[in-house]
Amino acid sequence: MDVSDVRFPTSRSLAGSDAMNLDPDYSAAYVVLRTDGAGAGDGTGGALEGHGLTFTIGRGTELCVAAASVLERFVVGMDTEELFEDMGGFWRRITGDSQLRWIGPEKGVIHLATAAVVNAVWDLCANTRGVPLWALLAGMTPRQLVDLVDFRYLRDALDEDEAADRLAAMEPGRARRIQHLQADGYPAYVTSVGWMGYDESQVRTLCEAALAEGWTALKMKVGRSAEDDARRAGLIRSVVGPDVRLMMDANQVWDVPEAIARTRELARFDPYWMEEPTSPDDILGHAAIARAVAPIRVASGEHAHNRVMFKQLMSAGAISVCQLDACRLAGVNEAVAVMLLADKFGVPVCPHAGGVGLCEYVQHLSAFDYIAVSGSLEGRMTEYSEHLHEHFVDPVRVVSGRYQLPSLPGYSAELLAASRSDHLFPTGRIWAGA
Amino acid sequence: MDVSDVRFPTSRSLAGSDAMNLDPDYSAAYVVLRTDGAGAGDGTGGALEGHGLTFTIGRGTELCVAAASVLERFVVGMDTEELFEDMGGFWRRITGDSQLRWIGPEKGVIHLATAAVVNAVWDLCANTRGVPLWALLAGMTPRQLVDLVDFRYLRDALDEDEAADRLAAMEPGRARRIQHLQADGYPAYVTSVGWMGYDESQVRTLCEAALAEGWTALKMKVGRSAEDDARRAGLIRSVVGPDVRLMMDANQVWDVPEAIARTRELARFDPYWMEEPTSPDDILGHAAIARAVAPIRVASGEHAHNRVMFKQLMSAGAISVCQLDACRLAGVNEAVAVMLLADKFGVPVCPHAGGVGLCEYVQHLSAFDYIAVSGSLEGRMTEYSEHLHEHFVDPVRVVSGRYQLPSLPGYSAELLAASRSDHLFPTGRIWAGA
Repeated sequence: MDVSDVRFPTSRSLAGSDAMNLDPDYSAAYVVLRTDGAGAGDGTGGALEGHGLTFTIGRGTELCVAAASVLERFVVGMDTEELFEDMGGFWRRITGDSQLRWIGPEKGVIHLATAAVVNAVWDLCANTRGVPLWALLAGMTPRQLVDLVDFRYLRDALDEDEAADRLAAMEPGRARRIQHLQADGYPAYVTSVGWMGYDESQVRTLCEAALAEGWTALKMKVGRSAEDDARRAGLIRSVVGPDVRLMMDANQVWDVPEAIARTRELARFDPYWMEEPTSPDDILGHAAIARAVAPIRVASGEHAHNRVMFKQLMSAGAISVCQLDACRLAGVNEAVAVMLLADKFGVPVCPHAGGVGLCEYVQHLSAFDYIAVSGSLEGRMTEYSEHLHEHFVDPVRVVSGRYQLPSLPGYSAELLAASRSDHLFPTGRIWAGA
Repeated sequence: MDVSDVRFPTSRSLAGSDAMNLDPDYSAAYVVLRTDGAGAGDGTGGALEGHGLTFTIGRGTELCVAAASVLERFVVGMDTEELFEDMGGFWRRITGDSQLRWIGPEKGVIHLATAAVVNAVWDLCANTRGVPLWALLAGMTPRQLVDLVDFRYLRDALDEDEAADRLAAMEPGRARRIQHLQADGYPAYVTSVGWMGYDESQVRTLCEAALAEGWTALKMKVGRSAEDDARRAGLIRSVVGPDVRLMMDANQVWDVPEAIARTRELARFDPYWMEEPTSPDDILGHAAIARAVAPIRVASGEHAHNRVMFKQLMSAGAISVCQLDACRLAGVNEAVAVMLLADKFGVPVCPHAGGVGLCEYVQHLSAFDYIAVSGSLEGRMTEYSEHLHEHFVDPVRVVSGRYQLPSLPGYSAELLAASRSDHLFPTGRIWAGA
């Protein structure tokens, strides 16, 4: 296992800027797993790699890199087929170390790092099997899927048997839904038109371009002064017209009463949802906001750090949109857990993406959710941001506002070797002179 | 600022063992701040030090050490008097870095590390003023105390003005309550009789010794098999009799329905509270358990990672006992925030302690809570565990089950230089041969 610190200097253009995150440098703690070839079950006898990352925004990436290195003990030296046979057991071991658990548990740096390692193992598994990650998951039986998930702390909402029953009920339509996605793609919305740091003419130009590309749903950042938010919302609405879905994202800057008041003020611009109106830890606060601003939906999840938080956000009616994150949660296993919970509570999953690698990841999760879990596209949209895809070996393809189903083996987050070395922090070409 | 990794090999004796934490090595990411003397306002012109730690249990301490080092930028080079004049502003800066925030926010490794740095700054401030930390806090006006706290995300429960009013109402009795603590000490309970890894004769001997020392409240670990828990509870009850308060601590091992069933089974041993019955993130789960097992109290907090979690745990009626942790929260400022919330919700603060340095820390917080915030000892007990105090310059003193008010300047968590060097991981004398 190798871990590296890869950072893109996005703060130079203010791409990704919002009311809380003023100057992010989109970054990754990047994990590469290498087999010695002997265990690779692909029949070629050759060594395979698994690549995984956790998304960060600059300073602090080095801590996730260090944490991923600490987790090496749960992966290195294992027989890959033994690992792949019991991915649920692997997940419980890597999240359950009795000493490391203290510095989470299941949150923050150690959990973000766990995502990078877990996602790398899944990439290795999908590469070994020669299928994209979504297809690997969609090929599992209900019981195999249930076995991926740690149901501890979930059983008051959903237990193994009920989850298996729900998955079994969806099993007959899987093939048809795969065909549907292959033909039509998965619905998406675009975020990169409305970063906080962009000026008005930039926003206008980007909105016009988005419409021309076929987007029918887009997101803007709010959370500065009320006047500023209203002016920017008015500008965007005036460009895109009344029929485009306009999502708003406050990135956690408000108190609960402030969130209610500010969302009501912005209601005249017809927001489809208000995202992260307050602290991501404030389940009851989100619930109070949701009650007060209905029918405007409350969306959250990119900072919801584990399945226990999502269980509560959904059981309390605090969110109407589940924005799980492929790296904030500890990788594929926990994302599956949250999709099962969302299905149980009838909350559509609209994953958080953007950043670097998140679009590449969540396209698989959304596809799997439709194929095997929810069986529905109703109210589902996967986030899309246009930045940094050129650095990936197998970048996402979006056509007329829809993600095209990935077809290459793996989990799609492999960065080009040149991109990795150029952006290695702090010694790569991009940073050495900075 | 120097940061070091200090570990005590407690797993060799199973001190500290429980159902979740099988073999902890009590450890600390340990911060030392040094002034250049010029800014020390003590009139001596000499350089002063501030010592701070965050408590960990072995593996992963190195990540907290690395994180504390990242936070150096918020402290080193500052004028100490400028820092001490605006400790609230300092706290908002160190928790509010727009890039580092992503890897929390306000949770996990970065938050634990923040505690070490913040606590070191408070130690330096108290040393500079020549007073113990509790006295430094108890000498502040209500408005100065309110200014220490970041009220963002709290105002739906408690705002600055109400907090100041509540503190002002308690101000007249401060001097009398200080006298009371100086005379009688602060009530405590003892945990070190009932570690999970101890055998029955060990537990019996320790309980008898505790009674002889004057303890009237003690805690045992539960969460293994129902039979095992009942046998150990029966043993302890038989030794200590019906009048001693017996607390039980499940250390997060149960699901919600399991916690309810198991607590009811243990009710016949008259537990004063059931601690951490399920995931520390499960606010609604704790609330459901609390409703189901009343009148047995539900206690939690040692893993409640910030003030937003405590706000909800208390507003939802999920806990009847607030077990704030001096290091899980980001140091003194956030502990003050949680004490203000606990007072508002009428929940007694019984801080989590034990570990290494936690008893030394929380004696100050409990004293301040009584002197200036709650004004009450009703239902208050500070945890005590007998381990590792011999390594501190100014160890806690407990007499007949009560903490004696500390009198030396500072926040009491300075480790002896020899203890630090001996236990430095992995090169110190204790570890080099292991």
